[in-house]
Amino acid sequence: MTATAAWGATAPTSGMAPLSIDRRELRDEDVAIDIAYCGVCHSDLHSARNDWGRTRYPFVPGHEIVGTVRAVGKGVTKFAPGDRVAIGTVVDSCRKCDACEDGEENYCREGMVGTYNGKDRIDGSTTYGGYSASIVVAEPFVLRLPESLDMAAAAPLLCAGITTYSPLKNWNVGPGTKVGVIGLGGLGHMGVKFAKALGAEVTMITTSPAKGADARKLGADHVLVSTDMAAMKAATRSFDFLLDTIPVPHDIAPYLLLLDRQGTLCIVGMIDMMPTFHSGLLLGNQRAVAGSGVGGIAQTQEMLDFCAERQVLPEIELIRMDEINHAFERMEKADVKYRFVIDMGTLA
Amino acid sequence: MTATAAWGATAPTSGMAPLSIDRRELRDEDVAIDIAYCGVCHSDLHSARNDWGRTRYPFVPGHEIVGTVRAVGKGVTKFAPGDRVAIGTVVDSCRKCDACEDGEENYCREGMVGTYNGKDRIDGSTTYGGYSASIVVAEPFVLRLPESLDMAAAAPLLCAGITTYSPLKNWNVGPGTKVGVIGLGGLGHMGVKFAKALGAEVTMITTSPAKGADARKLGADHVLVSTDMAAMKAATRSFDFLLDTIPVPHDIAPYLLLLDRQGTLCIVGMIDMMPTFHSGLLLGNQRAVAGSGVGGIAQTQEMLDFCAERQVLPEIELIRMDEINHAFERMEKADVKYRFVIDMGTLA
Repeated sequence: MTATAAWGATAPTSGMAPLSIDRRELRDEDVAIDIAYCGVCHSDLHSARNDWGRTRYPFVPGHEIVGTVRAVGKGVTKFAPGDRVAIGTVVDSCRKCDACEDGEENYCREGMVGTYNGKDRIDGSTTYGGYSASIVVAEPFVLRLPESLDMAAAAPLLCAGITTYSPLKNWNVGPGTKVGVIGLGGLGHMGVKFAKALGAEVTMITTSPAKGADARKLGADHVLVSTDMAAMKAATRSFDFLLDTIPVPHDIAPYLLLLDRQGTLCIVGMIDMMPTFHSGLLLGNQRAVAGSGVGGIAQTQEMLDFCAERQVLPEIELIRMDEINHAFERMEKADVKYRFVIDMGTLA
Repeated sequence: MTATAAWGATAPTSGMAPLSIDRRELRDEDVAIDIAYCGVCHSDLHSARNDWGRTRYPFVPGHEIVGTVRAVGKGVTKFAPGDRVAIGTVVDSCRKCDACEDGEENYCREGMVGTYNGKDRIDGSTTYGGYSASIVVAEPFVLRLPESLDMAAAAPLLCAGITTYSPLKNWNVGPGTKVGVIGLGGLGHMGVKFAKALGAEVTMITTSPAKGADARKLGADHVLVSTDMAAMKAATRSFDFLLDTIPVPHDIAPYLLLLDRQGTLCIVGMIDMMPTFHSGLLLGNQRAVAGSGVGGIAQTQEMLDFCAERQVLPEIELIRMDEINHAFERMEKADVKYRFVIDMGTLA
């Protein structure tokens, strides 16, 4: 075991503070990574506070991890010390079910092992996330970070990025597709960037007219203010795909009306009980309401390569490790454009 | 105008009784059809009673119509007296929007004209359905009934048939697809037959073990009793597509758990407020809840031809016109295997 500096929570109300965790000795297939930057995801906050009732303490968040390989186990063939790498939300899975074989380890039939608060499949220990100096992960779950990607800015790709990229790809968004992105936060701003980079016609749908100008800077072709009833009515049946990134419970009926025939509204932010709506909104135009959560290792690597090629990068605000409690507070007020990233050099 | 014998309702509580309606003189593009048989759809009952608050009286139901051409307008080129034809739920649309041009007149941007309780686009009159001796419909909305299809049995294809065929086709059900059909009634029994004919592996999902044997006779490969918790758990993530034909509000969460990655549950029966469920059921495996209503003219013709080629036909109980009130009562108790069809020869 290697004692490793980290920040984490020791109870739902403890807030975040420095602590020391143990990282395992390298197994044959393991890669040890010095963490350079770690993005701050809403799930980090929810889990630290045990909002979902499943957190084991001490708890170390962080699943948007970028860094450099420090050492490798003797069976590792694809990575060597010095390589730029990244870790997302998944660090292991059964590796043999159909989902794993299809590269969708996030939907593993035995359940994926989360980067934090997961249970190691070999020794049963609880996994600790990226708010720490280093991490040890099995090679098949280590991603290669292309040289041309800015390390700090790339961090949020590992969760906010793949969470928006995966549904856009899986629902075949591309040239000719009319996409609406609902909600402009960490996920939404990446939804706009990806949809645009994939060639779609992109509309930012927001309750806040002020966010319209921001959305255009990010690449949105149009802005639709959802509180403008006339504009919403005029936009009836004008979208093929809606990416709903709103993180709190909300009525989806007004958005369903915006979908054209065979259109899909995909929820990526709201993890809660669904609001009711009339089924006629689905039957009337063969519409669908779907959901999507992160993506598999292969698709995450594809996304990183796509981002490198097209220079698609999150907008970030770099913070020091000791600013995390304040960052959580600001995130709750949506006071961030658009993602906090911790400079792990400030951990020491 | 031609005075035409029919059965209909004159008020929400009137029940069904004989009445005389006017059928229009033939316009250039019109086809006059002597009705031989008309299927009895749940919508007929709901509309007769004004359950959806939109019924205009006098009201004549019936949108599963088969018969023979009696006369044609001078611009008609595809039909001639004596031809076997059929009319479904749609008798007109704008004919120029993208939906109409794509052959999805049922999703016309200006709204389709329903076979009954619709508003004629030319003279504004209310349309009357197939519980009558004859009907007059514009040529583009008249379907050809293949010679090899039994006329009486074919009637329910025009609504129950296309309502189940359309989603199975649009979600690419075929060999290798694992399909579950939920609910065994007018729609459900056609869902089983179509899914099987399309080459899928078909499971009937029902609350009633007694319906299992019936479902196997219709072609189901397996039966899953939804009240059997152990069986439901064992079937977790084992379906690609679920066709939900239950006509009343019901919890869909237990069924969503049955869907595998990227699976879709498609609602075709329940026209009501959606029950709530946890969004994690969608996000967890990129699942979708969709809806579907009937189908366009081109797809309906494709279905009739498919049924003729494969001899896929509804199971019907033939009734006399004056048995309709009793049939409505029995339908409400789901006491029919699986669709009533009125022998219009008994109207006189």
